[in-house]
Amino acid sequence: MKAKVLVTLKTGVLDPQGKAVQHALSSLGFAGVDDVRQGKLIELDLAETDPAKARDSVEAMCRALLANTVIENYSIDLVD
Amino acid sequence: MKAKVLVTLKTGVLDPQGKAVQHALSSLGFAGVDDVRQGKLIELDLAETDPAKARDSVEAMCRALLANTVIENYSIDLVD
Repeated sequence: MKAKVLVTLKTGVLDPQGKAVQHALSSLGFAGVDDVRQGKLIELDLAETDPAKARDSVEAMCRALLANTVIENYSIDLVD
Repeated sequence: MKAKVLVTLKTGVLDPQGKAVQHALSSLGFAGVDDVRQGKLIELDLAETDPAKARDSVEAMCRALLANTVIENYSIDLVD
């Protein structure tokens, strides 16, 4: 079973990486980009086949390592 | 209109960051993680309201800056 974890900065947390991308896009001539936020995508290939157990396990991984829950949100998508 | 761009490494391209995460998960006692790949999520807030034009513009941004198409794939999701 595969899991996709999206880790994004909470609203209000400064995102210098996103600002750099926004600035670079504007330098390249792309107008009308009002805001850019950058996050992480983590794709996990799990041996677990039970969706409920897999989700619990990925939740624990997010809290322990994948996301800094003080400043980041995470969402989990299980695939097949 | 908002756009979510997911940038992932092409299959076959080494992913040391993903391997580091996999190793760290295993050190923390999470068993059964067969593979980890790490990618990027870029959320764009666009002034454009026409979905077709917005997609074309984000495609151009991906090719010009957001993804290295030699080693990375990208996918675009438009939201409202």
